[in-house]
Amino acid sequence: MRIVDLIQRKRDGEELTPEEIARFVEDYTGGEIPDYQASAFLMAVYFSGMSDHEVDALTRSMLASGATIDLSDIPGVKVDKHSTGGVGDKTSLIAAPIAASAGVVVPMMSGRALGHTGGTLDKLESIPGFRTDLSIEEFRGQLASAGMAFIGQSAEVAPADGKLYALRDVTATVESIPLIASSIMSKKLAEGIDALVLDVKVGSGAFMKRQVEARRLAQMMVGIGRRADKRVQALITSMNQPLGYAVGNALEVMEVSQTLQNAGPQDLTRVSLELAARMIYLGKVAATLEEAREIAQRKLLEGAGYLKLKEVITAQGGNAQVLDRFELLPNATGVREILSPRAGFVSAIDAAYVGQAAAMIGGGRATKDDTIDPAVGVILEVKTGHRVDSGGVLCRLYYTNEANVDEAADLIEDAFRISANAPEERDLILEVVS
Amino acid sequence: MRIVDLIQRKRDGEELTPEEIARFVEDYTGGEIPDYQASAFLMAVYFSGMSDHEVDALTRSMLASGATIDLSDIPGVKVDKHSTGGVGDKTSLIAAPIAASAGVVVPMMSGRALGHTGGTLDKLESIPGFRTDLSIEEFRGQLASAGMAFIGQSAEVAPADGKLYALRDVTATVESIPLIASSIMSKKLAEGIDALVLDVKVGSGAFMKRQVEARRLAQMMVGIGRRADKRVQALITSMNQPLGYAVGNALEVMEVSQTLQNAGPQDLTRVSLELAARMIYLGKVAATLEEAREIAQRKLLEGAGYLKLKEVITAQGGNAQVLDRFELLPNATGVREILSPRAGFVSAIDAAYVGQAAAMIGGGRATKDDTIDPAVGVILEVKTGHRVDSGGVLCRLYYTNEANVDEAADLIEDAFRISANAPEERDLILEVVS
Repeated sequence: MRIVDLIQRKRDGEELTPEEIARFVEDYTGGEIPDYQASAFLMAVYFSGMSDHEVDALTRSMLASGATIDLSDIPGVKVDKHSTGGVGDKTSLIAAPIAASAGVVVPMMSGRALGHTGGTLDKLESIPGFRTDLSIEEFRGQLASAGMAFIGQSAEVAPADGKLYALRDVTATVESIPLIASSIMSKKLAEGIDALVLDVKVGSGAFMKRQVEARRLAQMMVGIGRRADKRVQALITSMNQPLGYAVGNALEVMEVSQTLQNAGPQDLTRVSLELAARMIYLGKVAATLEEAREIAQRKLLEGAGYLKLKEVITAQGGNAQVLDRFELLPNATGVREILSPRAGFVSAIDAAYVGQAAAMIGGGRATKDDTIDPAVGVILEVKTGHRVDSGGVLCRLYYTNEANVDEAADLIEDAFRISANAPEERDLILEVVS
Repeated sequence: MRIVDLIQRKRDGEELTPEEIARFVEDYTGGEIPDYQASAFLMAVYFSGMSDHEVDALTRSMLASGATIDLSDIPGVKVDKHSTGGVGDKTSLIAAPIAASAGVVVPMMSGRALGHTGGTLDKLESIPGFRTDLSIEEFRGQLASAGMAFIGQSAEVAPADGKLYALRDVTATVESIPLIASSIMSKKLAEGIDALVLDVKVGSGAFMKRQVEARRLAQMMVGIGRRADKRVQALITSMNQPLGYAVGNALEVMEVSQTLQNAGPQDLTRVSLELAARMIYLGKVAATLEEAREIAQRKLLEGAGYLKLKEVITAQGGNAQVLDRFELLPNATGVREILSPRAGFVSAIDAAYVGQAAAMIGGGRATKDDTIDPAVGVILEVKTGHRVDSGGVLCRLYYTNEANVDEAADLIEDAFRISANAPEERDLILEVVS
């Protein structure tokens, strides 16, 4: 079989065999297929899509390209949670400790920020001393002792995905549902998990702009997981406005602390609790989802998740006091208030603009090699549906360097829409795919 | 502008500006855009297509990447003819001399065989002594003296197209109508022509399998030409069975000679005369197409085209006696008869299979570097609609080397369909696009 024929068949909408897909992945990773044929293949996949058989084969081939972790000797049901990425999305740091405090084992392998969305690893690294570069043995040890550990994505896991992702990034082939689904699932299946809760974000601040696309992605990932004998559920949640009030790494850790003490924003609390409940249910701690929700709620009220996060921070070398004493976190040196040009109701806050503004002043990365300023970010004063006076504060921009602050302020002003009438209230959790 | 954004916009169906397309062509030719981004762009074009503005810009940019020929000081209207390629398609060698004998100036820049279709240059080179590597000055001189000259595609013409074509060939992006149209037209516009007659082949032996695709290609090429101030007409002609009876380089020269003496096959004569008439009409020798058809017919009956081809062969160093004494052409040493397995009507002769069989015994090229055996090929004994007895000869395979003859014979047997009832007669000239 010539690779050009394989590209052509994918282009023409034919289904490739698992062997053909495996050969593509192996030969590309091995350098036998040149980038220019791989990129044509990826664009053909973008347009032609993939069947369940094909996406399973792609996931398995990428998984097989690297190391996998065996957690079978650690007691308990291992459940991870993954978000497709949003602005102000700090739910992992809330849902995971709540679920772990209920007895679920949570091996959390997380990514870094890219573009306008944040990454769990970056948020954690704003905590002085916190180490995300645990060895696999340290990771396993902490899972056994604390029932929860955070670790960065190892380069040894699914290296084929890493090579393909780098090519997709420069050839406009990132936004393909089978390619996204197999990329996420190949890494998740390498973690040695029994179950997985997915949070597929949809809206202006998310990768998926339309619910129909988010649903297709969720269905595809849930299907891949099930066919690999994992229990998987996906929530499709709204990411039109930022989740909570805080956007920026240290600022989000502060909001996590408040939320785990049951004093956090309502939207963030709601999504985090539902994610935790799904983790508890899939982790077989509860027999029904209703019971799992009650457990999650109780653990929140008892502060058990809060204590679990402190335990994990300490175990990973971080200073857990930051959750009580925010001055121990990196702090911004300047602040800019963004004022409302008129009175009215906040009818929209474009999460993508807020995320871009935060990234622009150092809170995010344009490329993988950029460094992040953990102190900077945005604190919203209002959210969608709130009333605001003319000249009232919409949000505050926290920065450590004047550069780009004017542009970021302009951008964030554009994020807010102020209308005469209150907007319709919309549900945050749009759909469940299981 | 980043190239990845340009790929993405094309992927998403947006129209690119002429400047953006020019930059893509220039930077790719200059080596600043890597192959892997160019191939993703080409696959995006395959799926998203191109607007008239885009395909014009692509054609102009490829044209501008190389040399152009100025024929403005040569008196007369310069008209070329181009075929998208078929099996047994020797119409150029018939229509061009007829048109030239009527006073049209015919600068014919031709290609070589690739895959199962033949090339005009290869057919000409089966004539002992015939030179296709004229210098531009020799080419111009012969156009002034004889009114007609054959020349190979120079590497200096549209080199950007050459580089892009090589990439398309290995990335399954050849079969894109805007890419085919701009590739052909960039080379034709470099020739210094005033008008162009296109023969877009459709059917099993052609590149375009369906009439709707052939029409789109024809319309796009005619549009590009018109917007570049050239008079262009396209015939869409059937290529389900080979044109004429002969397939193979020297064998086709023999059939050209017979046809120019008005003793050729009916289908070949019909298409060649219509092409010649269109050339005569666009060449402004006749005021109406009807008059042009009469001229073409008269020139054929007078043998004027036959004499013109002899003059041109002599001018280009060839032995013009081959048109009368076929033994001066390269001759095969072996012959294999293919017999009909049963009595009935020939209901189909798959041109692709016949072309592949001829190529397999040395009459074609699998890659550009293969050499061609001018003597080999196929002579059909019957054509679609003819009656055949059980054991009657369907065709003869002429070869110089036993290798592959068995496989070629098997393949060509499969090309013939014998049915109980006579097939419906179908028109050869399906459509005119102008």
